[in-house]
Amino acid sequence: MDAQAKPHERLAAALSEPLAEVDALIRARMASEHAPRIPEVSDHLIGAGGKRIRPMLTIAAARMNGYMGPYDVHLAATVEFIHTATLLHDDVVDESGQRRGRPTANLLWDNKSSVLVGDYLFARSFQLMVETGSMRVLDILANAAATIAEGEVLQLTAMSDLATSEETYLKIVRGKTAALFSAATEVGGVIAGARLDLVQALHRYGDALGIAFQMVDDLLDWQRGDETGKGFGDDFRERKMTLPIIRAVASAKGEEYTFWVQTIGRGKQGEGDLDRAYELLETHGALESTRRTALDWSDTAKEALSVLPQSDLRQMLMDLADYVVARIR
Amino acid sequence: MDAQAKPHERLAAALSEPLAEVDALIRARMASEHAPRIPEVSDHLIGAGGKRIRPMLTIAAARMNGYMGPYDVHLAATVEFIHTATLLHDDVVDESGQRRGRPTANLLWDNKSSVLVGDYLFARSFQLMVETGSMRVLDILANAAATIAEGEVLQLTAMSDLATSEETYLKIVRGKTAALFSAATEVGGVIAGARLDLVQALHRYGDALGIAFQMVDDLLDWQRGDETGKGFGDDFRERKMTLPIIRAVASAKGEEYTFWVQTIGRGKQGEGDLDRAYELLETHGALESTRRTALDWSDTAKEALSVLPQSDLRQMLMDLADYVVARIR
Repeated sequence: MDAQAKPHERLAAALSEPLAEVDALIRARMASEHAPRIPEVSDHLIGAGGKRIRPMLTIAAARMNGYMGPYDVHLAATVEFIHTATLLHDDVVDESGQRRGRPTANLLWDNKSSVLVGDYLFARSFQLMVETGSMRVLDILANAAATIAEGEVLQLTAMSDLATSEETYLKIVRGKTAALFSAATEVGGVIAGARLDLVQALHRYGDALGIAFQMVDDLLDWQRGDETGKGFGDDFRERKMTLPIIRAVASAKGEEYTFWVQTIGRGKQGEGDLDRAYELLETHGALESTRRTALDWSDTAKEALSVLPQSDLRQMLMDLADYVVARIR
Repeated sequence: MDAQAKPHERLAAALSEPLAEVDALIRARMASEHAPRIPEVSDHLIGAGGKRIRPMLTIAAARMNGYMGPYDVHLAATVEFIHTATLLHDDVVDESGQRRGRPTANLLWDNKSSVLVGDYLFARSFQLMVETGSMRVLDILANAAATIAEGEVLQLTAMSDLATSEETYLKIVRGKTAALFSAATEVGGVIAGARLDLVQALHRYGDALGIAFQMVDDLLDWQRGDETGKGFGDDFRERKMTLPIIRAVASAKGEEYTFWVQTIGRGKQGEGDLDRAYELLETHGALESTRRTALDWSDTAKEALSVLPQSDLRQMLMDLADYVVARIR
């Protein structure tokens, strides 16, 4: 493996065998004898070549604690199913046209299929967890599922609400990303029978990594010529209360505040407003302070891991925490 | 209690205390400190005064096997949450305008809220099951969730497909109704620690009751002046392959078959087609044979219960199996 390879590529190489088992299990459980529509829709997403970050987190967490299987593979498939189900339901609700550079499932098929196939994947993930026989695992994933759903609803109601606090923002971010990251790493530790303090450390790592990841996403929205497929200022156009905007609004007075009320609160955006928004973010250092907060969360993730015994896998997870924020350094 | 009262009313009276606990638990768990939209949406459905059939099935099944609580209440709330989540997702997918005589959640709010609040209720139901500490209960409900989702997808793809078999129809019906009915009664038996043969009998009862219930629903579609809110021939207009239509299509030849291809397969329905469809159902005895099949399932439900010790609750469940088909006798 090239030493210059990205940490998730090194993880994928180190865990290639169990990850192949995860893929096989996903394909086997996605199949529905009676309803061919199900693999059609979910294959579209699962086959789209996502990075499999969540399954890798679970397997790495289990194996760095000496687990020899087989249930880390089950749990890795579980988290990927939950993730995919969430994307399917997200496609419906956001009326978004693209995901991972392909048309979303609900344009190729319809809302019905996205909702119901998502439900099917949730149910399948639930069966996979039950097979592990671990009530603690079920408890962790049930709580993660509630946090995810609550965060999604909260995002819906906080949308274009200028009063959105950083506390609410964190809840939304946990729902979008961090709750499943932290559950993924935590169940890996639990299935390996790791000590409670190590399990908690794994949870904190996943949580902090997910939060950093999402804040970087907020920042990339304001990066020109970014290759991730997001356009400059998309979040602003969609009136999302991202962290940079929350902070710029918090610093805004008088005419500036009126500008945010107009563009985010009322959604009346005209020519020049996007540039003006960017200027205000710069003026108040909102991008710079968000960048620093993201780096802090990345550090928190690495610190959490420091209580675990040194290993190659641990190093890759540490590097992953650096990599997530590397693009904004 | 009036001896002439309907069986579900007698059940509600006999189980009024635990049912009040179920309602209290539902309200407590529906609450979301952070996302007030959640109780707003789900209250609309849960508060709409459904008959609480599923919670009653669970509690009756547990108590007729000597269970003294407290987890039958948890499980009753669980099945009601799953039911409500299913309705919410159904509202999105069917683009239906009315449910239980009120506007559906997705007209009052939007598709987003229906999908996400449904997901939240699923997650909450999952947490409730975990609290019972019973892996068998989790296994049963995970399988029920998969059957429900698969049945819903199957219904979507079988819609207006003239080749739909009675086997496929049964899978759809189990997904719509019977899988949750049978899980509701089965987990009641399991939580009470009932013998395996009794647990299986409870499962068969719920399954057969649910199937009978759905077949009656198919028949009521062809009843003029029915007060349930369905209009005469709604299923035909929506091109649903209900059992009477499946049977009439199976008997159709030549010009009759062409009629079904035209009206159900291609959805080209003109003046007089509804009357013609009804006439064909009558000609081939499709309504009468569906009626007989529904009565057979009602008998199957009662027979299943016969292995359980005689009790007032058992009698009410038997009467419920009669009541479900009483309107079509």
